Amino acid sequence: MTMKILAITAVFAGLISFVAPAGAQGPKNLAERLGYAADAKLLIVHADDIGLSRSVNIAAGNAFENGAITSGSVIVPSPWFPDFAAYYREHQPVDVGIHITLTAEWEYYKWGGVSPAGEIPSLLDDHGHFHPTVEAVAQHAVPDQAEREVRAQIERALALGIRPTHLDTHMGSMLLIPALVLVYLKLGKEYHLPLLIPRSWLQTVPEESRQAIAAEHILLDGLYMMEAADTAKSWSEAYGEMIAAVGPGLNELIVHLAIDDTEMQAITVNHPDFGSAWRQKDLDFVTGQEFRDLLRAHDIKLVSWDQIREVM
Amino acid sequence: MTMKILAITAVFAGLISFVAPAGAQGPKNLAERLGYAADAKLLIVHADDIGLSRSVNIAAGNAFENGAITSGSVIVPSPWFPDFAAYYREHQPVDVGIHITLTAEWEYYKWGGVSPAGEIPSLLDDHGHFHPTVEAVAQHAVPDQAEREVRAQIERALALGIRPTHLDTHMGSMLLIPALVLVYLKLGKEYHLPLLIPRSWLQTVPEESRQAIAAEHILLDGLYMMEAADTAKSWSEAYGEMIAAVGPGLNELIVHLAIDDTEMQAITVNHPDFGSAWRQKDLDFVTGQEFRDLLRAHDIKLVSWDQIREVM
Repeated sequence: MTMKILAITAVFAGLISFVAPAGAQGPKNLAERLGYAADAKLLIVHADDIGLSRSVNIAAGNAFENGAITSGSVIVPSPWFPDFAAYYREHQPVDVGIHITLTAEWEYYKWGGVSPAGEIPSLLDDHGHFHPTVEAVAQHAVPDQAEREVRAQIERALALGIRPTHLDTHMGSMLLIPALVLVYLKLGKEYHLPLLIPRSWLQTVPEESRQAIAAEHILLDGLYMMEAADTAKSWSEAYGEMIAAVGPGLNELIVHLAIDDTEMQAITVNHPDFGSAWRQKDLDFVTGQEFRDLLRAHDIKLVSWDQIREVM
Repeated sequence: MTMKILAITAVFAGLISFVAPAGAQGPKNLAERLGYAADAKLLIVHADDIGLSRSVNIAAGNAFENGAITSGSVIVPSPWFPDFAAYYREHQPVDVGIHITLTAEWEYYKWGGVSPAGEIPSLLDDHGHFHPTVEAVAQHAVPDQAEREVRAQIERALALGIRPTHLDTHMGSMLLIPALVLVYLKLGKEYHLPLLIPRSWLQTVPEESRQAIAAEHILLDGLYMMEAADTAKSWSEAYGEMIAAVGPGLNELIVHLAIDDTEMQAITVNHPDFGSAWRQKDLDFVTGQEFRDLLRAHDIKLVSWDQIREVM
């Protein structure tokens, strides 16, 4: 399983590159509409996988309160989602989107869908859990069932008091599986929510769709994330290179925050990449002074998905 | 919700009393069949709620390895059940039964059934989780659906490599709800597994059933458990009184073990009874020297459910 996840991570990493901003999206560009110079380097610092565990929820709360992150997204089918929803209700406004999730990739820590299992059989394995890999989702998922489940995740979040600021996609399923891209675009439009769409990803879709998507969506000019290959460097060096590479336009830095504790170690067992120690290092780095200094040195303007939603 | 759980705990506590053993169950009584004197005080030291959380799984593993407990039972629909199943496969033989669970009583930490939701609608709330209280189960559960779900929990445990030694019942649902008692008895017989049935509970069933049940099952002469009212005493005093009260025949002491950590504190939020600190105290007590000395001083013979199953 580990090999397959790594393979998918590599595919997703292929989407993660940096392209110069396309320039005007109307009379003023996005940066100007947000009150910045036209060539401002805008960055969303975004915590992935909120709701995954108690450890992750504590870390995300710390990072929100510390001002280290400007946004995050939640895994609604995860056992610890209701705990985060309670935090959200007590601490709003908190900038949180729906981390649309169709996989259950950890070895012994599993979840199924929010929808009744009988309505989404193509999304589930023999035990009623989501498939462990994006490949398995691609192989089995019936798009209507995926749409039903994604809608149920959004509705569950709304029912628990969360006002999502955006949609994104756990392990990239909604962008990597062609049949699910239409579901992603459709639900973004229906709920009036911005979507995580890297500009570089457009190269993977047919020309006519490319133009329509570019016209209707605010695209990420750069998407940055620590990858397994980066761990040969120090965290300081890896993030230093990423922040130095951030260019004008809208950028997102995805971080994976957790407390390195027994819960998180057991969830990520046999999977050092994006594991418990990795996530503690991410938390330590983004909440530390060095990260603040780095952002200031490169004149990065921090923005949230809610700001994007408002000018959308 | 807290009040309701306490009320149910009180009802269940009503079942927990001590009755002198009924004497011969055949030519030799149970103690003799296990190789002890006829008036031996047999005690199963039993960890409840295994699989509830990573914290509980660590604590149960410690207690099994320390020899502090002789048995335990697992909550199969809980998120951390697969983690315990992995522990079990690496450490067998471990004496573990199925803690049949039809409630999801914690405030923000929830689970639904193992069966497809569409097959057990009467067991689920509007969010697809089990009802939070035994009263709600009693009000809504359709017995055929409960049977389907209980069977699915046993089958799921078997599928993950667990060879259960007994069945018991989370929050007492299977003994407190008359319509579910028949399901409990039926599945015990079908899977050839002993059932937790306190002798005192027989007083709640009609006379004719009482005799049939007593003839077919090995009953617990005494069932002991720390209750909310006991927390006015020290743990040492409370357990001292319980162990002193253990009489000849088959007895069970139910303990609730966990590490008092952030995960467990969040699961048991707003519920100090059977809360995180409570469970750490239970773990500390049963793994300590004082508990060993207490058992020796009262000439308690520790037995497991697997031994009961073998002579059944």
